[in-house]
Amino acid sequence: MGARLVVVGGDAAGMSAATNARRQADDLDIVVLERGSWVSYSACGIPYLVGGEVAAVDDLVARTPERLRAEHRLDVRLEHEVEEVDLAAGHVVVRDRARQRTFTLGFDLLHLATGARPTRPPLPGIDLPHVLGVQTLGDAQALLELARTSRCEHVVVVGGGYIGLEMAEAFLRWGARVALVEAAPQLMATLDPDLAARLVAPLAALGVAVHVGTGVAGFEPGRVLLDGGEVLPADLVVLGLGVTPNAQLAEAAGLELGARGAVAVDRRQRTSADGVFAAGDCATSHHRVSGRQVHVALGTVANKQGRVAGTNLGGGYATFAGVVGTAATRICSLEVARTGLTQREVAAAGFEAEWATIEATTHAGYLPDAEPITVRLGAERGSGRLLGAQIIGGQGAGKRIDTVATALHAGLDVQDVIDLDLAYVPPLSSVWDPVAAAARALVRRL
Amino acid sequence: MGARLVVVGGDAAGMSAATNARRQADDLDIVVLERGSWVSYSACGIPYLVGGEVAAVDDLVARTPERLRAEHRLDVRLEHEVEEVDLAAGHVVVRDRARQRTFTLGFDLLHLATGARPTRPPLPGIDLPHVLGVQTLGDAQALLELARTSRCEHVVVVGGGYIGLEMAEAFLRWGARVALVEAAPQLMATLDPDLAARLVAPLAALGVAVHVGTGVAGFEPGRVLLDGGEVLPADLVVLGLGVTPNAQLAEAAGLELGARGAVAVDRRQRTSADGVFAAGDCATSHHRVSGRQVHVALGTVANKQGRVAGTNLGGGYATFAGVVGTAATRICSLEVARTGLTQREVAAAGFEAEWATIEATTHAGYLPDAEPITVRLGAERGSGRLLGAQIIGGQGAGKRIDTVATALHAGLDVQDVIDLDLAYVPPLSSVWDPVAAAARALVRRL
Repeated sequence: MGARLVVVGGDAAGMSAATNARRQADDLDIVVLERGSWVSYSACGIPYLVGGEVAAVDDLVARTPERLRAEHRLDVRLEHEVEEVDLAAGHVVVRDRARQRTFTLGFDLLHLATGARPTRPPLPGIDLPHVLGVQTLGDAQALLELARTSRCEHVVVVGGGYIGLEMAEAFLRWGARVALVEAAPQLMATLDPDLAARLVAPLAALGVAVHVGTGVAGFEPGRVLLDGGEVLPADLVVLGLGVTPNAQLAEAAGLELGARGAVAVDRRQRTSADGVFAAGDCATSHHRVSGRQVHVALGTVANKQGRVAGTNLGGGYATFAGVVGTAATRICSLEVARTGLTQREVAAAGFEAEWATIEATTHAGYLPDAEPITVRLGAERGSGRLLGAQIIGGQGAGKRIDTVATALHAGLDVQDVIDLDLAYVPPLSSVWDPVAAAARALVRRL
Repeated sequence: MGARLVVVGGDAAGMSAATNARRQADDLDIVVLERGSWVSYSACGIPYLVGGEVAAVDDLVARTPERLRAEHRLDVRLEHEVEEVDLAAGHVVVRDRARQRTFTLGFDLLHLATGARPTRPPLPGIDLPHVLGVQTLGDAQALLELARTSRCEHVVVVGGGYIGLEMAEAFLRWGARVALVEAAPQLMATLDPDLAARLVAPLAALGVAVHVGTGVAGFEPGRVLLDGGEVLPADLVVLGLGVTPNAQLAEAAGLELGARGAVAVDRRQRTSADGVFAAGDCATSHHRVSGRQVHVALGTVANKQGRVAGTNLGGGYATFAGVVGTAATRICSLEVARTGLTQREVAAAGFEAEWATIEATTHAGYLPDAEPITVRLGAERGSGRLLGAQIIGGQGAGKRIDTVATALHAGLDVQDVIDLDLAYVPPLSSVWDPVAAAARALVRRL
C-alpha cells in the first residue's frame, strides 16, 4: 500500500474523487467515510422516489459499497462520521456509529466532500416529526413513511425553489392537496421575477395553492401557521429552503472559507492546506460569466469537481473549468431552465445588459403538439457578449438552455447565437430555433 | 422609389433576403418573382402534411403575398418564372404563366434564390404519373391527391435519406405497406454506416420493408422493378434521392459555379458578378470544420444566408458564418441527428480522429420513461479539437446535437465538452449528459 487518501463523504463529490484517484494511482490506500447509510446515490432523484415514479430507494443508488470495493478497491465505510480533522497530526477522528466507537485514522491526503444541509430556520415547531427536509435517502424514506402512515391529505411545501416545486409535484402524485409557501415575493429566486410569476398559474392549474410573499410563523401538529395569521392544514411539511455548505469540519480545522461559507478551493480543488482537497456542495466554484467565486450546490458540479479533485489527488493534473450558472427543473409538463446571470445578477456583477424575450413554439408551430416556449436572452451592451438566458416551456424547452450554456462557456456573443448551425426538423424545432430567434430579437435591441 | 432589387424565388432564401433588404432600405423597389403558386412556406413540413399531421397546405405558409406586400412593401408575383438573366443589359426575362406573356424586368440588384430540384434519374418509367418527387407544395398536393384516389395500399419510397425516411413515415400514417429502396449499402449516407444500420430494425418494426444496396431498374404502372429482378407493388412511388442546385439561370448568365454545381458565393453571399447575390439551396456554403466549400440544401441555411444577403443588398453589412454540418430527423419516436464530419468525411478532409461511442439514456435511467440514446463523438488526434458527432435515440436525443454544434462553431475541444455546465434534472438528463459522457469516453481514447 502507498499513501492513504481519506475521503469524507461518499456521494457524488466524494465518490467521483475516490474513483478518479484510483484511476490515477493504483497503489493509493483509499478510505471513504460516509456518515449515512448509502453512498453514490442520486439525491436529485428523491422527488421522483417520493412521488412514486421510482419504485425503490436502491434504484437511486448508482454503485453499492461492495461494487466500489470490488471494482475500484475503495474501502467504503458507512455510518462513519468524521468528527474532527487534525491537520497537524494528519488524522481524522471518526465515529463508527454502528459499533459505537470512536477512532483516529491517519491520512496523507484528505478530500472533503461533506455536502450541504437543508436550511432549517429556528421557527417554533420546526423539530416536530411531520416537518421534514429533503437531502439524503434517509430523508426520502422518512417522507415516504410519513406519507404512507399519515392521511397525506394536506401537504405544505415551504420554499418555492427547485426542490420545493419538485416536492410539490411529488405529493400531487399522492393525491394530496399541496400548498407551496414562499417568503420571497416570487417563486424560483433563480429566475427573473416576471418569468417566475408565470409559474404560478400552471402550478395552480395542477392543484398547487401558491402563497408567495408569505413567511411561515411556525408549525403545530397538523398545521402550519403563516405570517399574517393564516393557518394551513398539514399532515406533512416538506422544507425546501435551500442548503448551507457543511463546512464546520473544515472551518474547525482552520481551512479558509469562501462564498456563502463554503470551503474555499482553487481550480484544482485544493483548499488552503497542503494535501487537502474539497469538492461538491461544501466547496466554492468559479463563475465563468461573473468572474466571481460562488457556491453552487448541484449534482453536476459535484461530479465534475470530484473528478478533478480525484485526478489531482491521484497525482494527475486537472482543473475545474467553473460554472456558467446552469440549472433546470420540470414541473409536470413545464420545463424551466436558466444559465448565466439573471437580470438581478447581471446588475450585481456590474454589467449593463440588454435583454430580449420571445414567445415561440417548442417545434414547428403547424404541428399539432407544438407547445409554447419563452426564451429570454441577455447580452452586454457594447460588446454583445452573452450574459444569460432563461427558458420556460413545454417538452423540449428545458434542454435548449444547453445551447446557451455552451455558448457562455465559449464566451460567444449574441451574433454567434444567430449564426449557430442548430438542428432543425419540424417535429423537433422551428427553422429558427427559439434560442436563435431570441438572439435575433436581442441583436435588434443592442 | 430607389433602385430595384429583383429576387428570383420566393421561399426561405428569397423571402428572408427580401424582408431583410427592406429592413435596411426603405426606398428600395423590391420585386419577388416566384414560379410556383406559394411563397414563404415550409418545404420541410411537407412530410407532415402528406402524413396528415398538418391539416392544410396553407398551414405550411408562413406569410402570404398579401401580407408581405402590406407589411414589407414587397411586390410578390406568383407564377412568374425567370427564364433568363441578362447581366449586361441588367434585366431578367420573365414568363408570366397566368397571363401567358413574357416580359423583361430591369434590376439594379439581383438575388438568386432558385433553390434545388429533386434528383430524377433517367430510369424507364420515371415520368409515369404515380412517380412523384417531394419539393414544392404543388408536389405535396399531388402526393395527397394520388394517395386519396389510389388505393394507397403499397407505397415505394426510393432513397433512404432524410426525405425518404420522413415520407416513409407519412405513408405509414395512411396505413400503406411501405417499402424503402436505397441503392447505397446503407440508409442515411449522412451517418456512419454502423449507426445507419441501427435504423433498419426500428423501421422494420414500424412496418417499413427496407431494401438497402438495391437500385431501381425502372417503374411500371402499379410496380417498381428492382435491380436483380425483384418487383415491388406500388400504387404510389415517392422519390427522395436528394437534390441538385438550380443553377442553370446563373450558369447561363456566366456566374461562377462551385461545390456540386451550386452558385459560388462569398461570405456576404455575393456571386462572381457585381450586385448579384445568391442564397439557399442554389448556393454554396463554407464548412467551418472541414474548411471546405460545400453545398447544403437545408431550410436553416437558406434562412440564414437569405438574411445575410438581404442585409447586404439593403446596404448593410453581414456575413454568413458557415455551417458545421448539422442535420436532424425524427422517424416516429426515433430521433437522429448529426453535426460536424462523419468518419468518412473526416478522412476525406484529411484529419485523423479518434471516436468514442456511448450507450446511455435520454434522462435519468431510474425513471420509467428513460429511453436509450447512442452518442458518437469524434476529435482530432493530438489537438483534441472536436470534429463531429452523431446521435440516435428516443425523445430528447436529437436536439442534444446542438451542444456539439455550438461547441464546433466555437472551435472547442473534447475537454471543453466535459467541462460544459449542461442542464440536469432527472426527467430531462442524467447527471453527466450523454454528450458529456461521450466526451469523457473520448478523452480516455485520445
